[in-house]
Amino acid sequence: MQLGLVGLGRMGFNMRERLRTAGHEVVGYDRNADVSDSESLADMVSKLSAPRAVWVMVPAGEPTRQTIAELSELLSEGDIVIDGGNSRFSDDQTNSGLLADKGIAYLDCGVSGGVWGKDNGYGLMVGGAAADVERVMPVFDALRPEGPREEGFAHAGAVGAGHYAKMIHNGIEYGLMQAYAEGFELLEAAEVIEDVPATIKAWQRGTVVRSWLLDLLVRALDSDPELDDLRGYVEDSGEGRWTVEEAINLAVPAPVISAALFARFRSRQDDSPAMRAVASLRNQFGGHAVQSAGPTSGAGSTQG
Amino acid sequence: MQLGLVGLGRMGFNMRERLRTAGHEVVGYDRNADVSDSESLADMVSKLSAPRAVWVMVPAGEPTRQTIAELSELLSEGDIVIDGGNSRFSDDQTNSGLLADKGIAYLDCGVSGGVWGKDNGYGLMVGGAAADVERVMPVFDALRPEGPREEGFAHAGAVGAGHYAKMIHNGIEYGLMQAYAEGFELLEAAEVIEDVPATIKAWQRGTVVRSWLLDLLVRALDSDPELDDLRGYVEDSGEGRWTVEEAINLAVPAPVISAALFARFRSRQDDSPAMRAVASLRNQFGGHAVQSAGPTSGAGSTQG
Amino acid sequence: MQLGLVGLGRMGFNMRERLRTAGHEVVGYDRNADVSDSESLADMVSKLSAPRAVWVMVPAGEPTRQTIAELSELLSEGDIVIDGGNSRFSDDQTNSGLLADKGIAYLDCGVSGGVWGKDNGYGLMVGGAAADVERVMPVFDALRPEGPREEGFAHAGAVGAGHYAKMIHNGIEYGLMQAYAEGFELLEAAEVIEDVPATIKAWQRGTVVRSWLLDLLVRALDSDPELDDLRGYVEDSGEGRWTVEEAINLAVPAPVISAALFARFRSRQDDSPAMRAVASLRNQFGGHAVQSAGPTSGAGSTQG
Amino acid sequence: MQLGLVGLGRMGFNMRERLRTAGHEVVGYDRNADVSDSESLADMVSKLSAPRAVWVMVPAGEPTRQTIAELSELLSEGDIVIDGGNSRFSDDQTNSGLLADKGIAYLDCGVSGGVWGKDNGYGLMVGGAAADVERVMPVFDALRPEGPREEGFAHAGAVGAGHYAKMIHNGIEYGLMQAYAEGFELLEAAEVIEDVPATIKAWQRGTVVRSWLLDLLVRALDSDPELDDLRGYVEDSGEGRWTVEEAINLAVPAPVISAALFARFRSRQDDSPAMRAVASLRNQFGGHAVQSAGPTSGAGSTQG
Repeated sequence: MQLGLVGLGRMGFNMRERLRTAGHEVVGYDRNADVSDSESLADMVSKLSAPRAVWVMVPAGEPTRQTIAELSELLSEGDIVIDGGNSRFSDDQTNSGLLADKGIAYLDCGVSGGVWGKDNGYGLMVGGAAADVERVMPVFDALRPEGPREEGFAHAGAVGAGHYAKMIHNGIEYGLMQAYAEGFELLEAAEVIEDVPATIKAWQRGTVVRSWLLDLLVRALDSDPELDDLRGYVEDSGEGRWTVEEAINLAVPAPVISAALFARFRSRQDDSPAMRAVASLRNQFGGHAVQSAGPTSGAGSTQG
Repeated sequence: MQLGLVGLGRMGFNMRERLRTAGHEVVGYDRNADVSDSESLADMVSKLSAPRAVWVMVPAGEPTRQTIAELSELLSEGDIVIDGGNSRFSDDQTNSGLLADKGIAYLDCGVSGGVWGKDNGYGLMVGGAAADVERVMPVFDALRPEGPREEGFAHAGAVGAGHYAKMIHNGIEYGLMQAYAEGFELLEAAEVIEDVPATIKAWQRGTVVRSWLLDLLVRALDSDPELDDLRGYVEDSGEGRWTVEEAINLAVPAPVISAALFARFRSRQDDSPAMRAVASLRNQFGGHAVQSAGPTSGAGSTQG
Repeated sequence: MQLGLVGLGRMGFNMRERLRTAGHEVVGYDRNADVSDSESLADMVSKLSAPRAVWVMVPAGEPTRQTIAELSELLSEGDIVIDGGNSRFSDDQTNSGLLADKGIAYLDCGVSGGVWGKDNGYGLMVGGAAADVERVMPVFDALRPEGPREEGFAHAGAVGAGHYAKMIHNGIEYGLMQAYAEGFELLEAAEVIEDVPATIKAWQRGTVVRSWLLDLLVRALDSDPELDDLRGYVEDSGEGRWTVEEAINLAVPAPVISAALFARFRSRQDDSPAMRAVASLRNQFGGHAVQSAGPTSGAGSTQG
Repeated sequence: MQLGLVGLGRMGFNMRERLRTAGHEVVGYDRNADVSDSESLADMVSKLSAPRAVWVMVPAGEPTRQTIAELSELLSEGDIVIDGGNSRFSDDQTNSGLLADKGIAYLDCGVSGGVWGKDNGYGLMVGGAAADVERVMPVFDALRPEGPREEGFAHAGAVGAGHYAKMIHNGIEYGLMQAYAEGFELLEAAEVIEDVPATIKAWQRGTVVRSWLLDLLVRALDSDPELDDLRGYVEDSGEGRWTVEEAINLAVPAPVISAALFARFRSRQDDSPAMRAVASLRNQFGGHAVQSAGPTSGAGSTQG
């Protein structure tokens, strides 16, 4: 089928390729003329035949809201917009409402798989009306991995459900990554383990912890056996935060996902204000004497 | 090759089958005569030709220590014992020392894979001397999954390294399971998700969170879509505790693995003494008045 | 000075008493005629001389917003409103803006101390303009505890700072309570401790952990030595959630405060969906065989 | 009464002073001749009249074990030894057994209060036989704070109970300190709070979070308002680790105390190996392209 595709960054660029390989006609638009198939959003829309389908793949938040606002002016009744970015699920009501006023349908689609999706296919989670989902199914089928549809694609619920499912998926991802990371650090610290990369590599088959993330960790260790080419500085991109906020909102305990999130926050601090407070308190126990040499050779530390 | 195998429970029974299928000669011993190939440990040993290899697959702790003590009396110089149970790595020094006094070699082998190992093969992590590992390699090759040896088998280090690696493997496993579990609870609690099992099933291909554990979760949801045939009561079997103890010993932060462990402890409490203390403290803020109706229609709760 | 006081619940009722004892003239209003000094909000306002000061002490959220909206109609330029409830700091901009349109000043005041405040005085944290704070200072001085003003009263910043400080105060409170609670549970569980209440009572003087909360715990243990008259079911009233949300917003790690919050969520669950997922996964390792008796007397559990 | 006191470091030195002020006769011994009252342990013992009481106040672990071993040789039947250091409760059985063989009694005493104890008195938690406790009561009464004995002294149980109670006390202390520390960091990070030290200072009276630790934090902020004279590097001295190990041993959830412990471990790492693993995994999602500029101006980050 024919599809407009807005945003040809790392994700959109690869998706266009995968869609074309599957025989779909994609008219892409990106501000970067080097990769764009059209000169403007309006130009892209003009190249599509009604009823049109436009996939939005731009950064979450303002860029997505802005793109959808522009599309609501350019598209017509009967068209459909799919937001495939990492938007917060709460944005979907606003976006779909704006489009609904013009008679334009809306689907939200969480897309997982990173740069590997081009070849492996992307895991897809969709929210919206069943008829709308059905209409875009050829595109979903091209993007998702080979194999049974239900193992790489879900219609999770009404508008918002796709991004909600993707948010939780990413929250889980935070927890999984941190679990492997703690295990890696423990193996590194243990004297008895002589070959950490070989030990982790051996978990790829037969074990309970085998996973795609483990395969990626093995891949990383292949090229950097102590993972010291990188600093332990980790960004977060929103979904982990939103997952913990949802846990709070729903009164669901989420100790593992929140611990993984906080570990990322901590990783970006050179010095921790909280731990300065703890250090100060310990200093206070010992009075000013703590900083100068103690008077005797007895117990060197003061008992709290 | 020929192998004595002590312990024909769920793990040992299946391993005997896999080893025999691969063409090895296994003389098993179990207290349960229905499954045992020999009448006693001594009988089993008498059926093996020197130099003998005996694989111990009995519960960790006293049963394993006891079995190895008996084997140290029954075996001879040049024989080898492999402890394939879930022993704590710190037991390996004791066990190998006891056997070394008689000139008997020792390997410790962490075995992962559960009941699926019979068909899929078992992930193996081994500690001991290289020559000893080499000697038992035909057995390891039969037990491990098909594919490259290094993806299902590791010689992780000297004696103790196999159980150490298995301990960390299980610690990670605790964290992974808890991450999926928190995600499941969040999806269940969210109104927007109409089909939780379908959403999770769709994570099996293409997504970042795909894994064998996820496949098992999908399998569980297939037969029990809300997972309410079971109670949320979860045992722990030692390795999770040992992993956190090692984290403490090595001063390695392990917030995710410890949170997963504590969630299991909490799952086994009908009522939490700690939370009774918190409830009591909140009650104290409000004085005895909290329990009788307040005097007015104003702010119903007292501000801490 | 003269003060209107809206809301004569547990907090407001006691505060009126403390203010009157200090010689202030309080005109209270509450929907409950038994405690109210006036028939309506309008009646209360009519009994005050301009420029008026009105303290709002009703539940946070809708009741407070509603009260302030009504006051914005009833009061006049030059009057001042103080919100002493547990409002979220983000409400303060809205409330102060609404009043500012009419030329009415606004202060937000976090109030701590519970039912003990009537006699001990209340800890006060105020946000707003310095001149406005100064104007209400006689009221603050009457409400705060005896002793140096700066030990029981702070002008923390502009509008919103008072409720923000109170929010963080309560977040800390969650962490403190949980720390004592974990210690209590550990002492209860330890065989070597013969007298838990006496042990905790002895921490009241000289130790590092002495505090008002500890005094309250001792008080609770005096009347209920094992704290088993209550169930370990703990509500949360907003500030703990908001504190963790702020931690997320500011990218500040808050592992202790969030753990305390999640422990409360967990305390309200009879059965944990997350732990059902973990139990299901463990069951899957062992296949269906886990539920029927295993075939042998060997290792009873399957090794993950 | 007469008391031998081994170890005149920060704690022992001050305790000798407090005991002498109370009228007791103290014969101290320390390797540092400048502060010692005797030339050797033997010399100290020789200066005491039977039945002797000797208080040991040296670092936990080997120094304490060594001192007690020496005392077991020097003392006689009917004497008593009190270990007032921060020994692990599990050492008490060994120490008391060694002394019991010679007919020497043993008490273990957890001592809290730091350098402030000299003037404020020390919080004391004692384990041992009631008759032995009674015998040393004059010393306990001199060391403990003024006020009712039961508010600064507990006979918590048999041998080991004193150190056990002190261990839990310190575990709680870790949690309390971390709760205040997180609150401090949040206040520092919040734009709306203009005066963090004043805000915290105002919590000293009337609030729920008032405590001695809060007083110490105020004191620290008085001299260093942003706590930036110190680095956020925090040691731990054993009891926090032991508390979490006991939680594991007793299957008691301890999320707050363990989070506080792990925060200290983390504070001592310049770079976190675990977070290098997480960073590596995120890098793997994005392939090598992540490190060079992406091909387009579309979505800059890859969606996991």
